[in-house]
Amino acid sequence: MKMLINVAETVVADALRGLAAAHPELTVDVENRVVVRRDAPVAGKVALVSGGGSGHEPLHAGFVGPGMLDAACPGEVFTSPVPDQMVRAAAAVDSGAGVLFIVKNYTGDVLNFDMAAELAEEEGVAIAKVLVDDDVAVTDSLYTAGRRGTGATLFVEKIAGAAADERRPLAEIADLATRVNAASRSFGVALSAVSTPAKGGPTFDLPPGELELGVGIHGEPGRERRPMMTSGEIADHAVHAVLDDLGGEGPVLLLVNGMGGTPLLELYGFTAEVHRVLGERGVPVARSLVGNYVTSLDMAGASVTVCRADEEMLRLWDAPVATAGLRWGR
Amino acid sequence: MKMLINVAETVVADALRGLAAAHPELTVDVENRVVVRRDAPVAGKVALVSGGGSGHEPLHAGFVGPGMLDAACPGEVFTSPVPDQMVRAAAAVDSGAGVLFIVKNYTGDVLNFDMAAELAEEEGVAIAKVLVDDDVAVTDSLYTAGRRGTGATLFVEKIAGAAADERRPLAEIADLATRVNAASRSFGVALSAVSTPAKGGPTFDLPPGELELGVGIHGEPGRERRPMMTSGEIADHAVHAVLDDLGGEGPVLLLVNGMGGTPLLELYGFTAEVHRVLGERGVPVARSLVGNYVTSLDMAGASVTVCRADEEMLRLWDAPVATAGLRWGR
Repeated sequence: MKMLINVAETVVADALRGLAAAHPELTVDVENRVVVRRDAPVAGKVALVSGGGSGHEPLHAGFVGPGMLDAACPGEVFTSPVPDQMVRAAAAVDSGAGVLFIVKNYTGDVLNFDMAAELAEEEGVAIAKVLVDDDVAVTDSLYTAGRRGTGATLFVEKIAGAAADERRPLAEIADLATRVNAASRSFGVALSAVSTPAKGGPTFDLPPGELELGVGIHGEPGRERRPMMTSGEIADHAVHAVLDDLGGEGPVLLLVNGMGGTPLLELYGFTAEVHRVLGERGVPVARSLVGNYVTSLDMAGASVTVCRADEEMLRLWDAPVATAGLRWGR
Repeated sequence: MKMLINVAETVVADALRGLAAAHPELTVDVENRVVVRRDAPVAGKVALVSGGGSGHEPLHAGFVGPGMLDAACPGEVFTSPVPDQMVRAAAAVDSGAGVLFIVKNYTGDVLNFDMAAELAEEEGVAIAKVLVDDDVAVTDSLYTAGRRGTGATLFVEKIAGAAADERRPLAEIADLATRVNAASRSFGVALSAVSTPAKGGPTFDLPPGELELGVGIHGEPGRERRPMMTSGEIADHAVHAVLDDLGGEGPVLLLVNGMGGTPLLELYGFTAEVHRVLGERGVPVARSLVGNYVTSLDMAGASVTVCRADEEMLRLWDAPVATAGLRWGR
C-alpha cells in the first residue's frame, strides 16, 4: 500500500507541520500536539476543546477557529490523545469563562478526557464535558462501551461553537451540546477496508463483492456484511436505521459524510438517495452538508448523520465559522 | 471495484440530483446537465461559465455561486460536455454584460467550447474565452495538444469571479484570467490508478511499488514511473518542476491538491514538504489552500499548483466566495 508519507512514525507530526505552514491563523505546537486558534484565549468566551485519534481529518484540528473549536488535541492514528495534551489545550484557551471538552465515546478518549478534566480543574480551570455517542449501528464495539461517536461531533462542535461566540455561560453551552448529541443519530457503511501508515496496508479484510453495514470510523465491525448493494439500497438501509432510532418530529440537519476514499461524484449521487428516503419518511431537510468531514483515512464508504434540530440549533448552525475544514460567513 | 453508485449509466445524473437536493441556492437542470446559480443572471455582471468531464469534483459544479462561476456544464466522466450545454448555460446567465468561458486545455473541451462560443454569439451573447494550460509535466498527451489544464483552473475561476463581482468589463476580466493562467504552473503525481464507473475498475496499471510522476487528472501518463518515493522526495520533484518552468519573482498563491484517494492527513504532511522546498528556493507563500479540489475520482496522489500572484490577484483571491466547494467571507 503506497502512501504519501515520509515514514509511518512521523505522519502526525508531519501533518501538524503542514497545518502550521498552511494556516498562519493557528498556533500549532507540533511537539506537544496541540492546535490552538492564534487569538486564544478570547476574552469572556467559553472555550471549546476536542480531540481524538488522528486519521479522521478534517476532524478535529480542521475545526479549530472562530465559531467552532478553540483547540484540538490530535492523538496518534486511531489512538486517543493523552491527558497532558488536553490540559495544555485548556490552559491555552481558557479566558476564565471555562472550557467545554467535546469527547467522542471511545474508551480511551473518555478516560483521558476525564483525567484531563480533573487535572485542569486542579489548576483552576472550570471544565464541563459532553459525550458524543450518535452511532446507532452497534453498542459496545472494538473501541467503545456504548454507542460510538461519529458524525454528530461536527454538529456539536459547530452549534456549541456558535453559542460560545454569543458569550453564553459554560453550563448553558454544555446543556445545548448535550441536547444536540441527543437529537443526533448516525449510520455508516464501508465499501473497502482502511489502511493505516503503521500497518502499511488494510487493517481488516473486506472481501470483494461485500460491504460492511454499520461500520465505525476506524473500520471496526458494524452490524453485518452483505453482498454489494446499490447506492439507493444503502441509503434505504442507513436512513431507516437512523430514523427508526431517532423518533421525534420536525426538520433535520443532514450530514452526508464521505469516509475518505469515496469520490465526491459518488457521494452526491448517494445524497440524492438519502434525500429520497428522508422524503419517503416525511422528514423535511432544513440544511444539508455533503463532503469528507469525519473520515477514516482512505476507507471507501459514507455515513449519514441527522440531527432533529430546533430553531435555535439551526440559527447557530447558520452562524459564521472560519476553520480549515468548515467555513462560511467570514 | 465496489462503488457507491446505482448503475454506471446514471452516475452523473444521480450526482446532479444530489447537488440539487443539497444546494437549494443552485438551479440544476439534470436533463440538460447545466448547473446555474439561482439568482442568475446578475444585473450588470459579466458571467463566468466553465465545464468539463465529470470526475474532478468539486470542479466545476462545486464552484458555482457568488464570487466564482455563474454556471457549470458537467460532461460524462472524463468526457467533454457538448456545445448545447454551454450555449444553454450562457443564455441562462448572461445579463447583457457578456460571458467568459473558462476552458481547460483538453482537445474535446476546446473544440466544444469554440463551437458553443460561435453559437452563443449568433444568439447575441458576447463571449470571451480563456484557456487554462498550467500542467508542466508534458506537452501533447492522451487528451491534449499542448499543456493540460489542471489546478490553475481554480485560481482562474476564483480570481476572475471576484473581478466580475466588481462589475469590470468582459475584456478586462478575460485579460486578468489569461494573466492568472500565465502566472500559474502545476505538477501532479499518482500513487494509484483511477477507477471509473464505466470501466468498473482501474483504467490503467500502476505496479505496486511505483508512482507516476507528472500524471494528469484523468490518470493519463506523465513524465516517468519511478520506484516509490517519500513525501519529501515527491515535494522536491514537484516543486522544482513547477518553479523551473515558472520564472519571475515574488510571493505565490499555493494549492496543494489531493487527487481524491489520498487522506487529508497525508496531504497536510505533503504540504509541510512543499512549503519546505518553496522556502529552500526562496519563494514566499502568500496564501495556501490544501484539500481535494481538482480530483481524479479515487486516484491516490496529489498535485502542486503555484501562481505568481500580484497584489491585485491576492486581493481578488481574498474576496468573498460562496460555493459548495470553496467558501469564505459569506
